[in-house]
Parts: sequence; C-alpha cells; structure tokens
Amino acid sequence: MTIKQITIIGLGNIGGSIGLAVRNSEMANVTVTGYVRREDAGREALRLGVVDRVSDDLGDAVSGADLVVLATPVSAMETVMQQINPYLASGTVVVDVGSTKVDVNSWGRQHIGPAATFIGGHPMAGSAATGIAGANGDLFRDTVFCVVPEPDTPRSAHRMLEQLLEWVGARPLPMSAPQHDQCVANASHLPMLLASVLVTTVANNPQWDVTSQLAAQGFREMTRMTAGSAEVRRSICSTNKQAISDAIGGFIDTLENYRQHILEDDEELLAMFEDARSARSGWVAMRYPR
Amino acid sequence: MTIKQITIIGLGNIGGSIGLAVRNSEMANVTVTGYVRREDAGREALRLGVVDRVSDDLGDAVSGADLVVLATPVSAMETVMQQINPYLASGTVVVDVGSTKVDVNSWGRQHIGPAATFIGGHPMAGSAATGIAGANGDLFRDTVFCVVPEPDTPRSAHRMLEQLLEWVGARPLPMSAPQHDQCVANASHLPMLLASVLVTTVANNPQWDVTSQLAAQGFREMTRMTAGSAEVRRSICSTNKQAISDAIGGFIDTLENYRQHILEDDEELLAMFEDARSARSGWVAMRYPR
Repeated sequence: MTIKQITIIGLGNIGGSIGLAVRNSEMANVTVTGYVRREDAGREALRLGVVDRVSDDLGDAVSGADLVVLATPVSAMETVMQQINPYLASGTVVVDVGSTKVDVNSWGRQHIGPAATFIGGHPMAGSAATGIAGANGDLFRDTVFCVVPEPDTPRSAHRMLEQLLEWVGARPLPMSAPQHDQCVANASHLPMLLASVLVTTVANNPQWDVTSQLAAQGFREMTRMTAGSAEVRRSICSTNKQAISDAIGGFIDTLENYRQHILEDDEELLAMFEDARSARSGWVAMRYPR
Repeated sequence: MTIKQITIIGLGNIGGSIGLAVRNSEMANVTVTGYVRREDAGREALRLGVVDRVSDDLGDAVSGADLVVLATPVSAMETVMQQINPYLASGTVVVDVGSTKVDVNSWGRQHIGPAATFIGGHPMAGSAATGIAGANGDLFRDTVFCVVPEPDTPRSAHRMLEQLLEWVGARPLPMSAPQHDQCVANASHLPMLLASVLVTTVANNPQWDVTSQLAAQGFREMTRMTAGSAEVRRSICSTNKQAISDAIGGFIDTLENYRQHILEDDEELLAMFEDARSARSGWVAMRYPR
C-alpha cells in the first residue's frame, strides 16, 4: 500500500491543517488535492500552501485518490458520500474527521463501496482558530486520533489511516462507534454545551446589566467555547442526541448533588471540591506530561 | 484624608498583589504592613517586596493603620474582625476583598466600630497563579472593583477605598450587598462550580477509562477552574447559599431547555447557539475593548 494522492473535501481549519501537515511531512510523497466550492477559497488554499491543487468538482477532486478525507461539517457528510462514491477508484479508502461516529459510520456503510472502503476517524485536536486562515501543520502533533472501524472494516483501510496519522504526528486510539459517541458526549460535547448554556443563563438574567460589568476572567474562560460554528455544533447534537442527553442527565444529577451540599453547608462539600481538583490534575498529568 | 499606613491581613495572591501594587504606585507614600502567622511566610513576603514590614501579632499589625485590608478566606473574616477591632485607631477604615458581601458586611457592622468603619470590597481580578509567589503588582490594573457599602457607610470610608483603588489602578463599581451576591453567583460562583461538577460527572462515568484518553483541550479549559483552593470555594458557597442555589436553578432550567431542543433536533437550536455566541462576543467587546 502506497498513498500517492490524498483528496481533502472541506478546507476549513481541520481539513486545511491536515493538508498542511501532510505537505510538511518529510515521510509523505503525495499530491494533496482540495475540493472547494468557491473560487476565492481555492486561491486562498493554494496561497497558504495547504494543497497542491484544488478542484470545484467533486468527481474530479476524488478521481485517482488513494485516500479521501471528509472534513465537512457532519451535516454535509451523507450527501458528499453519495456524490463521490461513483468516482472512487477500487481500493480507495474514505475517512472522515467528524465529531460523531454512529451515524457517520452507518452512512459510510450505506453509501461508500463496493470499490472503496469507509473508516471513521476523529482527531481530538482543535484550536480557537477557525477557518483555513488558522490552519496549522502541527495541530495534530502528539494528539489522539480516534480510529473507529466497524467489525468488518478491512485491514487495508486501517493501514491507510494509520499511515496518515503517522504523517501528521497523531496517535491512533481505536474504539467502537457507540463507545466513541458516549465518550465524546462527556469529554467534548457536554463542555461545549455548558459554555453556551452558561451564557444563555447569565445573559438572560434580569441582573445582566450589572453582572456584565463585573463578570471577568472566570466567565470569559468558561464561555470561550461558544465561539465555534453554530452549524457544526448543531450537527454534532443532531447526530449524537441520546448520548448527549445522557451526559446532560449525569451532569444535572451531579449539579443537584453539589447544590444539596451547598444548601446544607456540610463538610462533604470540601471533599467534593478536593476530589474534583485532584481528578483533574491527575488527568492533566496523564494527558499532557512534561 | 491621607493614608500613611496600610495593613494587609492575609498575604495570599490577592493580599500580596495589593501590597505590591501599592508599593509600586508612584502616587502612594505609605508604609505597608503585612500580618502573617508563619515566620517563613513573613520572610518570603519581605523578600518579594510585597510589604515594608511584617508582624505575626494582629494587634501590632493593625495598630496605627489608616486602612486595613482583610484578604483572608471569607471563612476567617468574622474572627479576624473580632480580634482586630480593639486595636483599631479612630477613623481607621477596614475593607475586605472577599467574594461574598451580605454575610461579610453584616459581620463588619457587628464587629467593627465604633472607632473604625467597615466597607465591603471585591476585586474582580484573579489569576491562575496562587499564593504570594504569584503576587502581581499589575493584577488590578484596568479591572473592576466592586464597592459594597451599607446605606449608612460614611463618606470617609468611600474616599479611603477610592484612594486605594486609584493607587492599584482599579475602577470602582458601586452596588448593594444583595445585588453583589446575586451577580457574582451568576458571573463567578456558577462558572467555578460548573468546572468541578464537570470533572465529577465525567470522571465518575463508567467510561472514564477511555474518555480520559480522548478528552482534550475543551475539557481541559472547562475544568481549569477546579484548580483554586477548595477551602476558598467552600467558604464562598457557605456565605452565598441562596444566590448560588438560584443561579444553579436557572442554569438547570436552561440546560433542560437545550436538551429538549437537542432531542427534538429542531431549527431553534441553531439560533440558540448563535445567540449565545453573539451575546458572549458582545460582552467581550464591551468588557475587554481593543
């Protein structure tokens, strides 16, 4: 297996960063093609060096590709799969980088093949930067990349995705689609939601006029995640409804428990804060050593 | 009114930063005394230059002070007020820098006077740094400082506090104690709690083993606030129970509303995310211009 051509569909921050990372890799000897709809976006992609060539035609963009990376919002993926499948060469592997996997994998099974193969992927890397202008070739360096096959996904698809990860410097973490969706509901969709819910709650309180003047760094930090694309988060929610609802349920139970201890003003509350602090610092030490 | 001597009780990050800011101010011509219990902490304070002199005796530390700044955790303040009052000279103003005001102001009314006067204060500045080692003379520069008098607090106390704020570069924001406690419950106590609740929820989920491996920057950012002192947050909770419980109630209602829209997968959810993003970016532009 040798990858000679990679096509990236969707040149936002993630798609653009993958292009840059592959083109910067000394190991990779590939041509990177980018699919973009708008002509000016294509010029920008070439100017930033994230791709070798661009195309505004999906069939043309994927033709001859060994590996196709779907980097559109999750909401667009099913349609894109249907549109590209007729143009995929035999043996082509299609991977996505979306934030949810049960629905995406099921679309892959339905719409990709029999010539090509689908495998799900999800890079656990993100930045405050958005869009292609914020693309960063080191974005995936030393980060985790969830590899989410189905039980019958052929070994060749695994190998091709692992090759890509080696080039961009990411570490594969294999898991099933349902497990992925439950874990990211807690680790990433819940935190993202809390930021929006916090703003909605506080900004709609009758005291916002004064609160807005004294709110400071804590509020700023805990609401920064509202800054991402509303469309992206809506499509995350719509493809991971149940797991997100379960994560919300767990959060509300815990919050009610804290509230009870606050109202009773008991000693246990101190231990709860200590436990949360130590669980978090243990996690940081494990995930971000050095 | 001329301030010649300031005594700071409690040389943690906030107390230490006030000392540094006053000593760095070209306008101030004062002696700064710090009260510390431990001898090594006193040596450290002198070495860092946050005070001109230290004392491990409360009566000695406040004697001759024009302005006394209480910078202990809220839980220690009532006792400290009782202990210092007999030693306060006529006209001395006592200000605190605690995070809640209804209880603290009521202790001030009970325990400070008649020679001295109490006025409540709360700097809306904090940093990830903790302890005196992280003291920063610019911590209050261009930040908001809540000034929380009672209706009968004499004008002289206002003036003395305003003088201090001018020296440290903070902007006074006057309000009543109940309004303060409601606003900070939303702007700062709720965000702080959410960070702990998020860790407790996610780390106790049966999937934590895998979740901990893929959780990344979003989780890291939304849990950073767990890092502060558990004792400080417990004393915040115990002196602001009702307002915090109300803020939690408002948050749960909003979260349940988001959950409903997620489960129904309706268009409204997109508008909710957009509204939260724009409310937040409007707030940032207002609070942190340039």
